Amino acid sequence: MTEKMIPDIVVGRLPLYLRSLRQMAAEGRQVTSSQELGERLGISAAQIRKDLSQFGEFGKQGTGYHIKFLEEKLQEILHVNRDWDIAIVGAGDIGSAVARYKGFSHQGFCVAMIFDNDPKKVGTEVGDFIVKDAANMVEEIRAAGIQVAMIAVPASEAQGVANKLVEAGVRAILNYAPVNLSVPSGVRVQYIDPVIHLQRMTYYLE
Amino acid sequence: MTEKMIPDIVVGRLPLYLRSLRQMAAEGRQVTSSQELGERLGISAAQIRKDLSQFGEFGKQGTGYHIKFLEEKLQEILHVNRDWDIAIVGAGDIGSAVARYKGFSHQGFCVAMIFDNDPKKVGTEVGDFIVKDAANMVEEIRAAGIQVAMIAVPASEAQGVANKLVEAGVRAILNYAPVNLSVPSGVRVQYIDPVIHLQRMTYYLE
Repeated sequence: MTEKMIPDIVVGRLPLYLRSLRQMAAEGRQVTSSQELGERLGISAAQIRKDLSQFGEFGKQGTGYHIKFLEEKLQEILHVNRDWDIAIVGAGDIGSAVARYKGFSHQGFCVAMIFDNDPKKVGTEVGDFIVKDAANMVEEIRAAGIQVAMIAVPASEAQGVANKLVEAGVRAILNYAPVNLSVPSGVRVQYIDPVIHLQRMTYYLE
Repeated sequence: MTEKMIPDIVVGRLPLYLRSLRQMAAEGRQVTSSQELGERLGISAAQIRKDLSQFGEFGKQGTGYHIKFLEEKLQEILHVNRDWDIAIVGAGDIGSAVARYKGFSHQGFCVAMIFDNDPKKVGTEVGDFIVKDAANMVEEIRAAGIQVAMIAVPASEAQGVANKLVEAGVRAILNYAPVNLSVPSGVRVQYIDPVIHLQRMTYYLE
């Protein structure tokens, strides 16, 4: 397949398709359709067909998609047919919860280390990890070749941590701090902020 | 202002504008522009002006937006110029972290109660709360008139919990379980799944 620019909004839907396919596979299903995927996700069947067609021919008119095949193809496209090590910065409630989260296995990710700058937390256990000193973050992340990190520190500290992560070679940051980050081009940031999601819904409530 | 259908994707950007405005206000700033907002958010200035113009006239050509004024208007539009009580279902790592999270105050939300169905958790303390028995969830949420809830239970239990929340009168659900939920029209669901965000970024990594 030749390289072409796929809009990020299309890329953003692929993990949703992958999650639904996994769910169907877990239900013992073997074949699905763009209609069924669309109903599960609240996305039109036409949109799903158009999105997938940007990456190749994955289904046949009339017979639909083989779930396992499409799942493997999407894993390849999203580069999650391997495990990415993750560094977590911040061993507070959220960082600790994510470090203990079992949902990353078989999804392409594996938490590798967790850092904090609080001397009371450094050296303590969080799940299977010993909290490392954030003072050594740049060296340790670089030495491990880690490219994916999560920020779970207070908003006021998030930009400083992001700068260090970029210095360490991180190119994908999932930011749990409720603040916009400024990063060089070539580095991606995604945000998880429950307030943003909640406010998007209260618009519709009276 | 007359009621008109605003696309949900526009509604979804308003909380981001609000968060940036709050950040600017915290920095002691008084006036901003669509250009500056756009740079902070990675959204074009034209898009921001177009989005805001759907709700009224908030800025003046040449002088930009008064931060405090626009902040108040967006709070009104998003219905977060009041506090919405939230019920959390699931007192595991994620549910407990969210129950203790301090980031909801002054953003329109207030955690009111947390439930679990595990007898070992019911009655224990999580932050300022005593974990309630999920068996009484429908009655308690209905009696309190709560319309906003979060699901933080294993994927296999999430749909069952969602059904009960809908029965209790909940109309906005933030789902931390990595599974798509089916709800009646009139009920909104938003998803927080770190895997989805991470996979969207690994697409760009080699």
